[in-house]
Amino acid sequence: MATDIRTSSLTKPMDVADYLFKRLQQVGVQSIHGVPGDYNLVALDYVEKNGLNWVGNVNELNASYAADGYARLKGLSALVTTFGVGELSALNGIAGAYAEYVPVVHIVGTPSTLSQKNGMLLHHTLGNGDFNVFTNMSANISCVVSRLNDPSDAAELIDHAIRECYIQSRPAYITLPSDMVEKKVEGNRLDTPLDFSPKKNDPDQEDYAVSAILNHLTKAKNPIILVDACAIRHRALSETHELVVASGLPTYVAPMGKGAVDETLPNYCGVYAGSGSHDSVKEAVEAADLILSIGAIKSDFNTAGFTYRTSQLASIDFHSSSVKVKYSEYNGLRMNEVLTKVTNHIKQNPLASSTRAKPQLVSKPSDSDDQTESQVITHSWLWPHFTSWVREDDVIVTETGTSGYGIWEVKFQRSTTAISQILWGSIGYATGSAQGAALAAKEQNAEQQRHRRTILFTGDGSFQLTAQEVSTMIRQKLNPIIFVICNEGYTIERFIHGMKAGYNDVGEWHYKDLVSAFGAQGGTYLTYQIKTKDQLRKLLVDKEFAEASKLRFVELYMPKEDAPTALQMTAEASAKNNAKAE
Amino acid sequence: MATDIRTSSLTKPMDVADYLFKRLQQVGVQSIHGVPGDYNLVALDYVEKNGLNWVGNVNELNASYAADGYARLKGLSALVTTFGVGELSALNGIAGAYAEYVPVVHIVGTPSTLSQKNGMLLHHTLGNGDFNVFTNMSANISCVVSRLNDPSDAAELIDHAIRECYIQSRPAYITLPSDMVEKKVEGNRLDTPLDFSPKKNDPDQEDYAVSAILNHLTKAKNPIILVDACAIRHRALSETHELVVASGLPTYVAPMGKGAVDETLPNYCGVYAGSGSHDSVKEAVEAADLILSIGAIKSDFNTAGFTYRTSQLASIDFHSSSVKVKYSEYNGLRMNEVLTKVTNHIKQNPLASSTRAKPQLVSKPSDSDDQTESQVITHSWLWPHFTSWVREDDVIVTETGTSGYGIWEVKFQRSTTAISQILWGSIGYATGSAQGAALAAKEQNAEQQRHRRTILFTGDGSFQLTAQEVSTMIRQKLNPIIFVICNEGYTIERFIHGMKAGYNDVGEWHYKDLVSAFGAQGGTYLTYQIKTKDQLRKLLVDKEFAEASKLRFVELYMPKEDAPTALQMTAEASAKNNAKAE
Ligand SMILES: Cc1ncc(C[n+]2csc(CCOP(=O)(O)OP(=O)(O)O)c2C)c(N)n1
Ligand SMILES: Cc1ncc(C[n+]2csc(CCOP(=O)(O)OP(=O)(O)O)c2C)c(N)n1
Ligand SMILES: [Mg+2]
Ligand SMILES: [Mg+2]
Repeated sequence: MATDIRTSSLTKPMDVADYLFKRLQQVGVQSIHGVPGDYNLVALDYVEKNGLNWVGNVNELNASYAADGYARLKGLSALVTTFGVGELSALNGIAGAYAEYVPVVHIVGTPSTLSQKNGMLLHHTLGNGDFNVFTNMSANISCVVSRLNDPSDAAELIDHAIRECYIQSRPAYITLPSDMVEKKVEGNRLDTPLDFSPKKNDPDQEDYAVSAILNHLTKAKNPIILVDACAIRHRALSETHELVVASGLPTYVAPMGKGAVDETLPNYCGVYAGSGSHDSVKEAVEAADLILSIGAIKSDFNTAGFTYRTSQLASIDFHSSSVKVKYSEYNGLRMNEVLTKVTNHIKQNPLASSTRAKPQLVSKPSDSDDQTESQVITHSWLWPHFTSWVREDDVIVTETGTSGYGIWEVKFQRSTTAISQILWGSIGYATGSAQGAALAAKEQNAEQQRHRRTILFTGDGSFQLTAQEVSTMIRQKLNPIIFVICNEGYTIERFIHGMKAGYNDVGEWHYKDLVSAFGAQGGTYLTYQIKTKDQLRKLLVDKEFAEASKLRFVELYMPKEDAPTALQMTAEASAKNNAKAE
Repeated sequence: MATDIRTSSLTKPMDVADYLFKRLQQVGVQSIHGVPGDYNLVALDYVEKNGLNWVGNVNELNASYAADGYARLKGLSALVTTFGVGELSALNGIAGAYAEYVPVVHIVGTPSTLSQKNGMLLHHTLGNGDFNVFTNMSANISCVVSRLNDPSDAAELIDHAIRECYIQSRPAYITLPSDMVEKKVEGNRLDTPLDFSPKKNDPDQEDYAVSAILNHLTKAKNPIILVDACAIRHRALSETHELVVASGLPTYVAPMGKGAVDETLPNYCGVYAGSGSHDSVKEAVEAADLILSIGAIKSDFNTAGFTYRTSQLASIDFHSSSVKVKYSEYNGLRMNEVLTKVTNHIKQNPLASSTRAKPQLVSKPSDSDDQTESQVITHSWLWPHFTSWVREDDVIVTETGTSGYGIWEVKFQRSTTAISQILWGSIGYATGSAQGAALAAKEQNAEQQRHRRTILFTGDGSFQLTAQEVSTMIRQKLNPIIFVICNEGYTIERFIHGMKAGYNDVGEWHYKDLVSAFGAQGGTYLTYQIKTKDQLRKLLVDKEFAEASKLRFVELYMPKEDAPTALQMTAEASAKNNAKAE
């Protein structure tokens, strides 16, 4: 290939695809998710070449879920699909990442710039010569769109996309035309790492807000802390932890904030979700005269159907780019520094000891239910039993359905990562996401000598949507522990509408047979069928089950018309809201 | 519920959902595809109530493919999904229907009009209060968008959506908010069937064009007919058949037109796809001095990589809303009436007998290949063997990959429906589509006493994307014959780029074990593993295999680096085109 004038002016010419993958690697990405397609094949040659692991998912929707799960552990992820057919299949997963603030870089291999200019009637087009339509669709669910149509700004656009993706913690969309892959950009740029530092807060505004906060906080009789999703997604976990520890205040998490707080701390007091909470939690939170609310997303499913009974007059809201003290808004303030200043002040001027959390009753399996004759595994019985089984550093993935609510009853150990899609709520997500999470955990285990297990709880209905992602787990030699709750269909939907309706039934699969059908070799996996309380008790003390370096797959049979109480309440509220007209 | 003033003014008040499903039923829809979600549950109560069959697909992408397959047999289909998560998962399938002119009515259950007005922070939203974003995305791939936000125009909008969907033969998108389902519309409207009659051609323009056509046709020395996709999709098959029979002209089909012509007619001469065609076909078509080209879509994969060597000066193009005689364009003319007039003229004034098709060599399995020692099943050997096995009325579904090209070598019997997505080319489509097609065929068999079999040929790579749709086939008691070509991955992609690349490999599944894992009861299915020519020969004369009322599933092993010649040529052209820069 003749070197053009522009290329010869480059100090260290580097192919666009090399640049892209090296940048991703610099920010911690070690595996690239996605599915091949002829418009991205040449680019895929650069994955392995740059020492990255190509996942090769089974389909694009699963790949997008997996990329989401991977990003939740690693801070950022990348997904490669092909023009039209591939990228559109991933849209639901990308929309979920957008809604839930997960930084996924979506790279789409497109027809060459020349084919596009000529409006050629190519496969994977709508047949109308419009090559922008899919980009326009994705623009709705991306924080930035970078179209690499010209080598002269390609590196710039790549940097911009990755940076915005990280900073805004939302998907970025990049198109990479097939003829651009090997075009040259300035490789020297890579010597300067991407600048991920956030915009600095205005110091005066920050001080003003902090003193307002401290003013209310020191006066409050029974202040509490309530931690939610954005504390995780906007990377305010260590600031939150410092505040929780230093203040000693009673600390709660919203469902989407599960995992944000070290639940072994003496002042961790449980999950608050309005009327979906335990009575003692509900009373304590709603009696608080000040709530330090960190990263709240008050969506219907996160609040058990909008049943918060808290008042703005008793709230201080910390967000990624604003702080609100009662009704005073401080726009542009990033919570992290504000939290740190509040903590530092408390360290020097401890809060009144009366505000510290009182010792909690230890949550334990409900004895009454345990003493009944029945061996049937109910939700109220089941979930508390996992409290003694989960471990430090576990990654716990749950699905929209009974598992997503049941998990509230499991008290986590330190450094647990909880993954769930409570706002977006796309079923099938959990299985795909568990693949990405398990891969990320494996990378973290290797790099940081950790022992993270990945544990998936999903429903039979949900599992059916994306079941084949188990095959990717097998190919990637991942060893998650998978629980499929077999309850004859869409139980969560039954509680919303159609308890007995046929449309809430699903096909009766032999779930555990799938593991070998999807290609797992004998000796690399274990399967279980759990139908009684005794079987579950035994399983939870089985050392091999807890520790084997094998994929473990559990069919967990539960009654069709049973669900966690919090789910029942949320479902009822949803049904009412759906029906309500003006 | 109190009856409001508007409702009491209705002669025959009917719930919106009743009206919608009854209208669909009137136009031949007997089964509704889709997946439940809480925003559509109440609407789903109306499906069975109206005597319709609820399919209950395993996920929304599969459902959209199935709806596409169903529509290709029945003329129109309907798909129900839920807001956000459900509808976005279906977008790829709907985009395919848009590109390939398939009439699918996509009904999305949305949050109530009140929740939308109040901008509530509901599950399945992006969390930004924007309830229009998904509709805007779908608008790009729908011929009409009907938002049923008001009972006063809901019936009107439903009629409009279904009519445009049919007439334009493209997807229509309907939103049905949860609080609108039970609102009342005028039921009397149902007494007047929807008017599906197309806009009439301008008679003078039509006559003018017809005489121009006849003028060229009677002068031509060796005219031919070439039939393509739009003859099928725009319902010009009977007009085409009449012309083919009356004229006796040599008749060819493009790959997307396969199935459009009765291949048992003496003047059917084969598949033309430029250099991808057999030599004799290529020579004959390219030597023609006039091509009556009916419903052409000259996309890359339909022309073996733009290798047509035909001239506009020797072409007359018939389309759904235009006719082009050499370079003279007649916009607004619908081909159907034009073809009929041409045929009628020919009936009265037969063409010169020298223009009639010469007797064809009967295509038969290549002996040379058959006589070699090797038992390895190659593509050049395989496909001609199906010619004697396929039957009248068969529905044959093929996938993007080797099967989509191999099928060119199979000569069909009368009334065959071929289903393939040659323009859009989304893999996984064939399996989903086969479910819908098999269901439609079952309905046609029951209603019209036919004996349609549904035969699916797919690749191992493609099958993995949507494999679980086999479970829907099982639940719906469908008995397709499924061939999965097991060739260790993405062979078509290998021929484009990366013959040995790891990214073109797929997991090694035990495909046939899936049938029972997906819930098929013993006795209701048969599985086969075919690795040699002898095994295939035996299979093709096995009466039970051909006729059993059981689902039949064949693992067909073929070499990784073998593909039909036409595929190899197309792949090469694609690779070149991808690389070509200005
Ligand atoms: C992609 C998608 N399709 C449909 C829905 C609607 N939906 C929400 S929960 C659910 C049922 C989940 O059933 P299952 O996984 O069996 O959960 P469980 O029985 O434990 O409640 C459905 C269909 C959705 N949320 N996402
Ligand atoms: C949804 C989607 N993702 C990716 C592609 C790119 N693609 C086209 S064909 C193909 C491989 C098909 O492999 P297989 O089904 O095994 O066919 P064969 O080996 O018979 O060629 C791929 C990955 C696509 N067309 N659609
Ligand atoms: Mg279930
Ligand atoms: Mg293959």
